[in-house]
Amino acid sequence: MKRLLREDIDALDKRFRAALINSLSGFKSANLIGTCDIKGQPNLSVVSSVVHLGSNPPLFGMVMRPPVVPRHTYENILATGSYTINHINLDIAEQAHQTSARYDREESEFDAVGLTPLWREGSRAPAVKEAKVRMGLQLIRDIDIKENQTRFLVGELKWVEFPENAIAEDGYLNIEDAGTVAISGLDGYHQTDHLGRLSYAKTDKEIVRLQEVMQGF
Amino acid sequence: MKRLLREDIDALDKRFRAALINSLSGFKSANLIGTCDIKGQPNLSVVSSVVHLGSNPPLFGMVMRPPVVPRHTYENILATGSYTINHINLDIAEQAHQTSARYDREESEFDAVGLTPLWREGSRAPAVKEAKVRMGLQLIRDIDIKENQTRFLVGELKWVEFPENAIAEDGYLNIEDAGTVAISGLDGYHQTDHLGRLSYAKTDKEIVRLQEVMQGF
Repeated sequence: MKRLLREDIDALDKRFRAALINSLSGFKSANLIGTCDIKGQPNLSVVSSVVHLGSNPPLFGMVMRPPVVPRHTYENILATGSYTINHINLDIAEQAHQTSARYDREESEFDAVGLTPLWREGSRAPAVKEAKVRMGLQLIRDIDIKENQTRFLVGELKWVEFPENAIAEDGYLNIEDAGTVAISGLDGYHQTDHLGRLSYAKTDKEIVRLQEVMQGF
Repeated sequence: MKRLLREDIDALDKRFRAALINSLSGFKSANLIGTCDIKGQPNLSVVSSVVHLGSNPPLFGMVMRPPVVPRHTYENILATGSYTINHINLDIAEQAHQTSARYDREESEFDAVGLTPLWREGSRAPAVKEAKVRMGLQLIRDIDIKENQTRFLVGELKWVEFPENAIAEDGYLNIEDAGTVAISGLDGYHQTDHLGRLSYAKTDKEIVRLQEVMQGF
């Protein structure tokens, strides 16, 4: 095992450190965030920091990098209050990654990478037609992380669309069947292999595998 | 495709809704959070909401459920300022999941599930010996998400340990090689299959696959 102390980390080359630290949180969600400006000009960007905040009301959090350079996604969300979250699947992973290039404000990443905006009632922002799980959100809070000027956006779910056959009887959505990928570090993309669902943990019971498709255990 | 509006979601059975909404953010990081109380009594809990906040300084965020019932992990972090983040790997996934049972405050989840506390200089909280990627953090901010009483904890990295052979020349850590798993929904565990790393996106360049181990593209 390699052990690094904080002073070792601070002394690393900037890009090396960014690659390492970005790898340490574990696997990340892989989403495309759809927005538009007040004139309706669409924008699309890959975001790996969407997290679940709560189910009632349905809330999601998302980290945005510091707005020290123009950040079209962040500016659009502030201007319209509206954004969409779209799962990146196997078929669109390269196109999704390409949205992270620095396109001009006037240029639509949808056009540039070959994805299709989907305008849905209930959202001013466009969703992604090629995504199999997509949802519309309304910004409810913009939290300043003072320590490094990142923003933590809290949004409320307005609508969701997913493949009908991907949902289990108890509400679990099989996002692996929907082709959703995971991200590691800054640029690693992964498909997944279901190990199974594990039973609700109780102190006096053994964990039971709810689906017998376990491989690694 | 199934489309649900907000009123449909609010009308769902509570458990069904929790399972569905928890599935919507995409794949989640799978970590064990190690803490101890002021007397040194260890605690361990599975957390699927660790996110990267920044690399310089190295910061991570983490969502904690509302402290309306006693939350030992949250209370310990407030009391000591110290916690560890430990990647859940294939070999310890069931033990990790078992830590989510409601053990008494006096009972160590390490003992209950059969994992080994590892006490490291630089952290008052114990790490997990069986984890292959582990790190020590210092709490720097506790943010109240007013909308649902969850907490968003911001922590600063003090030290990290990882398998020496898992790091690439540019700092990317191959967490798949380290056996790290991903979580979906409340109880789905997944191993991963590397599709490859994608090149830094530029508007005038095609995305290049940095490792030719792509399968799904």
